[in-house]
Amino acid sequence: MICENQQELESYVAHARHWTQKGKVADYIPALAKANQAALAVSIYEPGKHCFSAGEVEHKFTLQSISKVLALAVALEDIGEEAVFEHIGMEPTGDPFNSIIKLETYKPSKPLNPMINAGALAVTSLIRGSNNHERLERLLHFIQDITNNSNVKVCEEVAQSEFDTSFLNRSMCYYMKQHNVISGDVEEILELYTKQCAVEVSCRDLARIGAVFAFDGKDPDTDRRIFPTNVARICKTFMVTCGMYNASGEFAIKVGIPAKSGVSGGIMCAVPGRIGIGIFSPALDEKGNSLAGMRLLEKMAKAYDLSMF
Amino acid sequence: MICENQQELESYVAHARHWTQKGKVADYIPALAKANQAALAVSIYEPGKHCFSAGEVEHKFTLQSISKVLALAVALEDIGEEAVFEHIGMEPTGDPFNSIIKLETYKPSKPLNPMINAGALAVTSLIRGSNNHERLERLLHFIQDITNNSNVKVCEEVAQSEFDTSFLNRSMCYYMKQHNVISGDVEEILELYTKQCAVEVSCRDLARIGAVFAFDGKDPDTDRRIFPTNVARICKTFMVTCGMYNASGEFAIKVGIPAKSGVSGGIMCAVPGRIGIGIFSPALDEKGNSLAGMRLLEKMAKAYDLSMF
Amino acid sequence: MICENQQELESYVAHARHWTQKGKVADYIPALAKANQAALAVSIYEPGKHCFSAGEVEHKFTLQSISKVLALAVALEDIGEEAVFEHIGMEPTGDPFNSIIKLETYKPSKPLNPMINAGALAVTSLIRGSNNHERLERLLHFIQDITNNSNVKVCEEVAQSEFDTSFLNRSMCYYMKQHNVISGDVEEILELYTKQCAVEVSCRDLARIGAVFAFDGKDPDTDRRIFPTNVARICKTFMVTCGMYNASGEFAIKVGIPAKSGVSGGIMCAVPGRIGIGIFSPALDEKGNSLAGMRLLEKMAKAYDLSMF
Amino acid sequence: MICENQQELESYVAHARHWTQKGKVADYIPALAKANQAALAVSIYEPGKHCFSAGEVEHKFTLQSISKVLALAVALEDIGEEAVFEHIGMEPTGDPFNSIIKLETYKPSKPLNPMINAGALAVTSLIRGSNNHERLERLLHFIQDITNNSNVKVCEEVAQSEFDTSFLNRSMCYYMKQHNVISGDVEEILELYTKQCAVEVSCRDLARIGAVFAFDGKDPDTDRRIFPTNVARICKTFMVTCGMYNASGEFAIKVGIPAKSGVSGGIMCAVPGRIGIGIFSPALDEKGNSLAGMRLLEKMAKAYDLSMF
Repeated sequence: MICENQQELESYVAHARHWTQKGKVADYIPALAKANQAALAVSIYEPGKHCFSAGEVEHKFTLQSISKVLALAVALEDIGEEAVFEHIGMEPTGDPFNSIIKLETYKPSKPLNPMINAGALAVTSLIRGSNNHERLERLLHFIQDITNNSNVKVCEEVAQSEFDTSFLNRSMCYYMKQHNVISGDVEEILELYTKQCAVEVSCRDLARIGAVFAFDGKDPDTDRRIFPTNVARICKTFMVTCGMYNASGEFAIKVGIPAKSGVSGGIMCAVPGRIGIGIFSPALDEKGNSLAGMRLLEKMAKAYDLSMF
Repeated sequence: MICENQQELESYVAHARHWTQKGKVADYIPALAKANQAALAVSIYEPGKHCFSAGEVEHKFTLQSISKVLALAVALEDIGEEAVFEHIGMEPTGDPFNSIIKLETYKPSKPLNPMINAGALAVTSLIRGSNNHERLERLLHFIQDITNNSNVKVCEEVAQSEFDTSFLNRSMCYYMKQHNVISGDVEEILELYTKQCAVEVSCRDLARIGAVFAFDGKDPDTDRRIFPTNVARICKTFMVTCGMYNASGEFAIKVGIPAKSGVSGGIMCAVPGRIGIGIFSPALDEKGNSLAGMRLLEKMAKAYDLSMF
Repeated sequence: MICENQQELESYVAHARHWTQKGKVADYIPALAKANQAALAVSIYEPGKHCFSAGEVEHKFTLQSISKVLALAVALEDIGEEAVFEHIGMEPTGDPFNSIIKLETYKPSKPLNPMINAGALAVTSLIRGSNNHERLERLLHFIQDITNNSNVKVCEEVAQSEFDTSFLNRSMCYYMKQHNVISGDVEEILELYTKQCAVEVSCRDLARIGAVFAFDGKDPDTDRRIFPTNVARICKTFMVTCGMYNASGEFAIKVGIPAKSGVSGGIMCAVPGRIGIGIFSPALDEKGNSLAGMRLLEKMAKAYDLSMF
Repeated sequence: MICENQQELESYVAHARHWTQKGKVADYIPALAKANQAALAVSIYEPGKHCFSAGEVEHKFTLQSISKVLALAVALEDIGEEAVFEHIGMEPTGDPFNSIIKLETYKPSKPLNPMINAGALAVTSLIRGSNNHERLERLLHFIQDITNNSNVKVCEEVAQSEFDTSFLNRSMCYYMKQHNVISGDVEEILELYTKQCAVEVSCRDLARIGAVFAFDGKDPDTDRRIFPTNVARICKTFMVTCGMYNASGEFAIKVGIPAKSGVSGGIMCAVPGRIGIGIFSPALDEKGNSLAGMRLLEKMAKAYDLSMF
């Protein structure tokens, strides 16, 4: 058993709490700016064990970039590994997640990986469905299945607000359309993408998602297969090489587990064969990762010896 | 008098004609691909003199990037030098005309000059008018006035075709909208921009436009002022530093006159205080300039001692 | 036991052999160009087991970029994690290993990681010693200790040849000296760096090196600690995120083990807690990795289920 | 006659003087840092006229980047236009004068023009001579001839200081050596380059240099030809497109004359067919141009109608 007791986890949260004051809540849309700067929560999902949690675990937040991993899993299932990687590369970029430069300099034009915005938009464009409603249902059911939570749904306010203002994502989509990286209607892709980012979850949901990836796509409790091993493996690899924006390398050194963060302050972690972890703390560092969440994870990684390396 | 006789000019055209076979007609839209690869024409507009022409001067073609100079003149008149350069820089870029990189790397985000696509789109967004119809009328009347040709109009086929496929320009507009370089509706700006690029002219029209710039904004025949001296001067300066895509530096060395080219194969030149020149030859070199047109201009620059330097 | 029998391994090598014809032996210095294009060899070091090998295992070759991992281990031991990462970053770059661009664009100027040339040169400048002779001895003894092979030494011909022609590395050193990333004499640093790259090993040596990293810095046979766990962990992490030039992401997906390649055609792999693998095949792919070596590793990763993810 | 009287020029200097307090004297070497922040001087060289001067015209300063124009003139004379432009391009860059990025991104690797550091170093490598002493003599005599001042010589203190610390220029030289842009010994090229930059002149010398370029390479007083017309024309063109670092475009708009500045605070201007102007004021703006000098030139350009455009 990873986490021995509730008190221990609560003390870690208590000690990391002050870091929430050093970060900055994302404010590019009003719905995100409303988040509670001081919030810090963690859940650990260990199969067959009590799910330990500490902090404001009742808080809900949107997946944002964490949804990139889930959309990738769906696209890999829908059209297969080979077809996905015809459109999107496998390499870390060294650039910010919203950089457009490598779309111009890298030949042939192709987003370098599915965890940067350009790559994630291209992934979303590959999800099967005869229209956006079908594609969103496909994705939502997948998330509800992994989280074992049929209440998971899109926060329409956040989705609309992002859709109206995501000029940079539009810019990248049109750039990719010019170079045949994406086909289909840009506004439709953006609508689906902003909805996928606006799926609302809790820390516990994230921990459960992490656990499913940790156990290679199987429900950690029932052993039922939700998605193929290979899909889980690919997703976990990207989480290591590019999951934490352009702090991924440092995170791999300091924590050493597959993880994906979002600008809402969530972090989803999958410790292979062991546990899933969900983190929430909306105050971000300069790279866009939850500041207190990162500190808490560093602490937990040492205490529970979580690093893969 | 610059050009002594008709025969001389015709012999220059005849000698440069074979270069039309080395270039490549733009084919990114069908309407441009239809151009006659072998065409080569030139007109010289010298005030008070016969307008010498040689080659296929009856051919019509769209302004394309040459319109960037005219839209800049209108914007400078409409909102003034200071307001224009709040949104657009004054520096050559060293990058291709359709590069998006410096919008990301240059701080604050701002297109480097009005002759690259990003800058030209921003300029177009500054033209006054309560709607696109008014703005287009403003621009068309300006062009009809300069060319002294009320028949000049938009080729709707080219405009529509460019509008439908200009994903790269859309991408740059949304990128600039994100960074508040442009405000207003992107689709409207693109519609106006593609229409301005699709204004149809002949070599003679270009020569007359060049002459008006050469004479600081005055009608070279009647001395009537069409636009202010300062506007003419700014436009001619950009024509020297950035008029020939990223071959502007070489053109300044080898020819040495203010000039602006377009992918339809036109080149408009203003030899300060002396003449205007219009060139048409749709086969382009690698940088996007009329290949035979450049050779013809090199020859004429030497023969008539046109360089400013 | 990972590898069941000798025959199996030999059949993998036989099947991968034809790939040696698709690659290209590095020829930027004559000493490397002499390598046998058709060579392909592999060694597996499993503690307490027979060391299985197949192919031309008697071939010697120089470490080249594989030495970056070893120099990093020495520097981490010599001055500690914190001091090393004051000079060198932890992030993958997405650029070629010899790119100089991010030294200019990344602020403050700092090589992004120790596996690209700029970062490796900076690492080498941090190795302790009162002069180059001492520093080289320090490094050589470290390598002899890890390989358990006191015959390992520098190939002076290769070292001299690289030193005379490494203008790009000189360029990066002076760039870093300008920005205070490195101090000390550039020619001395280059001399040490080219010597470290020219250390000659065999496949078996590489396999043993991999095994020591796989077992967290301990001699896998005697359990004697050679370097600290933390050093081994950091090195393995960089091997995953940046070990295979800018094919590291793809390698992580397809093979999924910490590995470092060199332009001489060697690959050193550390499968955590299990085995070390040494590969040699000098015909390289476009990214600079041993082409047949990569194919062989893909095969072995599947056959022996080696991926960490 | 351009300048009507001494008093007028003095009043312009007096009015521009306060701008010297807004700039920053270059301090990367001690010899430059010693310059008098408050100094502002101007000389106008009009053939057959009194040479009007105002301000601290007795001050001496080193040519720095102004020497790039003179070395280019020498190299063009020595090996011809074609040979020079095999090694160096003709295009403005849009990047800072000491940027190394385009050497990597531009294919084939080639400095974009002779006014950025990389291009100027390549130009210097092309000056004829069997050794550095001969090459320096060649260059010095050229400068003494143009300035009609046989006392012009190298400031050894500045040269040595720059040589010892010019790691960035060394970096660019080695990068270019790798790509065969320059051949020969890098340290020798750097020695010659730092000496050329350290040639000491006064405002009056600069004005006279400008006048020789203004009159197409002829001594403006005696009409004796010093260098060919074509060389003068090429140099003036680069002064317009790239003479004022990456403020060249803005300078062309606002002043509109061929000019070259240096970090010592000098500006040399050639108004074609009319005058030469020398400026000195060591407090620089952010782009590296003399701040008060630029303001003074803007004023003079308007007052004397100097713009070419």
